[in-house]
Amino acid sequence: MKLHLFERSGNAYKLRLLLSMLNLPYDKVLLDPAKGELKSAAFLKLNPRGQVPVLEDGGEVFWESTGAMVYLARKFGGETWLPSDAAGLAQVMQWMAFAQNEVLFGLQWARAVVLKLRGGDVEEYRGYGRAGLAILEQHLAKNAWLALNRTTIADIANYPYVSLAPEGGIALEPYPAVLAWVSRVQALPGWIKRV
Amino acid sequence: MKLHLFERSGNAYKLRLLLSMLNLPYDKVLLDPAKGELKSAAFLKLNPRGQVPVLEDGGEVFWESTGAMVYLARKFGGETWLPSDAAGLAQVMQWMAFAQNEVLFGLQWARAVVLKLRGGDVEEYRGYGRAGLAILEQHLAKNAWLALNRTTIADIANYPYVSLAPEGGIALEPYPAVLAWVSRVQALPGWIKRV
Repeated sequence: MKLHLFERSGNAYKLRLLLSMLNLPYDKVLLDPAKGELKSAAFLKLNPRGQVPVLEDGGEVFWESTGAMVYLARKFGGETWLPSDAAGLAQVMQWMAFAQNEVLFGLQWARAVVLKLRGGDVEEYRGYGRAGLAILEQHLAKNAWLALNRTTIADIANYPYVSLAPEGGIALEPYPAVLAWVSRVQALPGWIKRV
Repeated sequence: MKLHLFERSGNAYKLRLLLSMLNLPYDKVLLDPAKGELKSAAFLKLNPRGQVPVLEDGGEVFWESTGAMVYLARKFGGETWLPSDAAGLAQVMQWMAFAQNEVLFGLQWARAVVLKLRGGDVEEYRGYGRAGLAILEQHLAKNAWLALNRTTIADIANYPYVSLAPEGGIALEPYPAVLAWVSRVQALPGWIKRV
């Protein structure tokens, strides 16, 4: 198994976390965005977006994090990280979609503007991200984990850009249940630092 | 089964399409956004986002479209619309994530600004949406459907806001393979108009 990444990438971190928690060996293919290695013809053939992560396993290629996490969890994680029954699978995928919505396009895009990685209206992104944090806070005040009362890939998918929200100018102190959940994720067996 | 919606909603349209294609009976709960019915205490209890669609079936509640489509496909669609093997499931979820990324935060948000449903930088959204259309065009020039060489929920999830892109000021004529795919979706048994 091969993971194309650069170490600071929050989206690649989702896969590094899951691979570590599942105790799966893999090879890292390190890319340097500053050298244009994400936009090379060879890499664009793997991923038309020109982004990391890309996961390769046998003949399969996954060029974004949601599909890659689903693949790893379903293939190697038994019923634990992603169940196969309709309702359980859908509850996890609902919170995976949340990670692609308020968390990515709110919290992470605000951070990306601050870090000068993209343009756009930072206050618009912050507002969208804070609306997401309010939903998370309400949910996590009553539930230890996002879906099914246990750790699933939904927690791993949401964790990186929630925990990095302060880098986008969004303090997490107003969201104590979110902070407590961040600590619980960081205490999971196999948790690793991003950098 | 109960679907909370208003008829013009593109996200609710994804579920109406899938329910129609699966030939499943359901009750519509029609809400009027102009009357504040999405922000009532009762509705916010079902969906903290205050948005449609919400799908209820037995005791299960799904408050966004991805999870609800996964639920319907896995419970009622056999292996056709969403397979259960790791690689197949992940390929479909990859394109479901695409519908939540370039398509929603590019094409649909550009449309939402034009229709005065939200603020933000319309040119930023259009640029992001066009980058998504370029990826779709490249893929659909070689593949009839988004995942697994057959119709899956990935096609149904991407179709509404791709086909509505012109309402956001994004012409589809530069993307002939995308237009041909839109026509193929519209020719599927059970396809219905949005309004």
